[in-house]
Amino acid sequence: MTEPPDGESRGPRTIYDVARLAGVSIGTVSKALNANGRVSAQTREKIERVARQIDYRPNSLAQSLHRSRSMTVGILSTDSFGRFTMPIVGALERSLFDQGIAAFMCSATDDPARERQHIDQLLRKRIDGLVVTARRADLREPIAFTGRGVPVIYAFCHVGDPQALCLLPDDEGGAALAVEHLIGLGRKRIAHISGPERFEAVRLRAKGRGRALAASGLVISDPLFGRWSEEWGREAAMALFSERRAIPDALFCGNDQIARGALDALRERGLRTPEDVAVVGFDNWDVMTDAARPRLTSVDMNLDALGAEAGAALQAMMAGETLSGVRRLPCSLVVRGSCGAKTQAMAGSL
Amino acid sequence: MTEPPDGESRGPRTIYDVARLAGVSIGTVSKALNANGRVSAQTREKIERVARQIDYRPNSLAQSLHRSRSMTVGILSTDSFGRFTMPIVGALERSLFDQGIAAFMCSATDDPARERQHIDQLLRKRIDGLVVTARRADLREPIAFTGRGVPVIYAFCHVGDPQALCLLPDDEGGAALAVEHLIGLGRKRIAHISGPERFEAVRLRAKGRGRALAASGLVISDPLFGRWSEEWGREAAMALFSERRAIPDALFCGNDQIARGALDALRERGLRTPEDVAVVGFDNWDVMTDAARPRLTSVDMNLDALGAEAGAALQAMMAGETLSGVRRLPCSLVVRGSCGAKTQAMAGSL
Repeated sequence: MTEPPDGESRGPRTIYDVARLAGVSIGTVSKALNANGRVSAQTREKIERVARQIDYRPNSLAQSLHRSRSMTVGILSTDSFGRFTMPIVGALERSLFDQGIAAFMCSATDDPARERQHIDQLLRKRIDGLVVTARRADLREPIAFTGRGVPVIYAFCHVGDPQALCLLPDDEGGAALAVEHLIGLGRKRIAHISGPERFEAVRLRAKGRGRALAASGLVISDPLFGRWSEEWGREAAMALFSERRAIPDALFCGNDQIARGALDALRERGLRTPEDVAVVGFDNWDVMTDAARPRLTSVDMNLDALGAEAGAALQAMMAGETLSGVRRLPCSLVVRGSCGAKTQAMAGSL
Repeated sequence: MTEPPDGESRGPRTIYDVARLAGVSIGTVSKALNANGRVSAQTREKIERVARQIDYRPNSLAQSLHRSRSMTVGILSTDSFGRFTMPIVGALERSLFDQGIAAFMCSATDDPARERQHIDQLLRKRIDGLVVTARRADLREPIAFTGRGVPVIYAFCHVGDPQALCLLPDDEGGAALAVEHLIGLGRKRIAHISGPERFEAVRLRAKGRGRALAASGLVISDPLFGRWSEEWGREAAMALFSERRAIPDALFCGNDQIARGALDALRERGLRTPEDVAVVGFDNWDVMTDAARPRLTSVDMNLDALGAEAGAALQAMMAGETLSGVRRLPCSLVVRGSCGAKTQAMAGSL
């Protein structure tokens, strides 16, 4: 589940407390307590019981104060809408649409002046909430907000403000999942080729791999940091397998493009995957996983779930709840031929 | 430029007449006549002269009738927002934002009931216009519209209704551009590997290749239709180069994934690209073109320009103009190492 945010035990109970105690997502809590959407009777009863036990109630005063809502929200991307933001935005849009809320989409492409203009325009349209999403290198600046009472959520990006709610994939946990899987298959020398170290995701994935190796007492070789490209995957794999030292029996790669490049380099050196070297990627991007030979085992960030979570959290905030902190949502591992496992699919830590 | 739509000579002059006669895009006409945006004094004078000559004037009566506008439009994708729709939507959103118009984004994923709900919601929000976009297999049904006076544009999709305005890339022209380029480099046996024949784009690209070959008196071998995947590109190239007949000296592929797969198959058969076989793809998708060895020459559909055109056309329609017909916007060719040309970039038919 998600980690408890700062300050969860202070102040009134939130939708996150109910979700944690009932063992469900906040989207499910929202559906159960609002009596809309498909939730089994059993789940609904359990959620209602937990809500009673901890004295949680949706803030109906705030809800009625908010009846003059515009039923619109803004989605602002500081990157153009790309491969990572689209699944999030799609799931977010679906979750809002089910509640009769429409989403304005704005792309500000890292230009602070344009971002400010977009926010001005959205506030003039009287949006009820705002989701900010971005390609993540590292912390972004919080939105300098002039619209009091309009809740903001950061999805797939991260700000320093402890009052802000930031939803992120659990990169460290996802990496540990991949490396534990390789260890379980008997691999001992698991090298790591990844993207630019300035990305927080790169540092967290390296940390997760290190944690999993340390827990099994295996050697932690230095990660190779480089670029997010197939070309870098080929270069790095060529370098690793040209060394005179003990060569790896597995590669855990920071994304699927790197893994794809590494697979090509292994084939061209006459090494077999998975027999000689197992390979696991990150992103579970079908364009890469399905074209790879053999098909690529990869970590899935469950961006659909992240988008749905953002939608449910925004609705809770629009109804008056105060949510904050950094929430890391679980990744899962999708097993295909490149890691040498027999099974076809393996659930993540969900 | 764009081809004249049906009925262009009947009725009042449109923004497309001005654009055609001035040799500019309709976005440029819109900027020049509304005195906003960056247009050179020279271009502005030329456009104003053309507009006077043909007695074109923005429909100011309609403009004032529309002053009670909501300054919002809807963008409805019947496919989830993916690789092709995102650049279009991004450019469209930028072009509308410059006019103070915000865009609602809705994805209906080929579910007619959900599409109808989305349209109901958008009409209740009093949108001033609607853009429908989709991944194109073939004709889609026109929107069954209950909002009188709300103009609709189809971008990157195609409906049978002759009253509708449909903006599409010129697939046939783009394919001809690629094949003419290969012919100019001295290639004589230009095979074609493409996607599923049920896609109109596949049929048009095959037609453009046939037209270019016929114009040069070259043999037109049967196209190989299959799937949109690297795997199919590898299979088809293996088959072509295993035949005992005259083998191709060039491959024109229906998309970049097919081309990437074909390149891998050629390398694995010991054939050199571009020396033995030149290869050209379609889509100019950097993920594929940059990972290919050598880097892939490819046809660019200029989807940004298509999105900007959709924005300008929608604004003209919101101001009272009636626009209709199928408009095919020019593609261009981006030259890299895989075709054997010396130059680094070549303009399209723009």
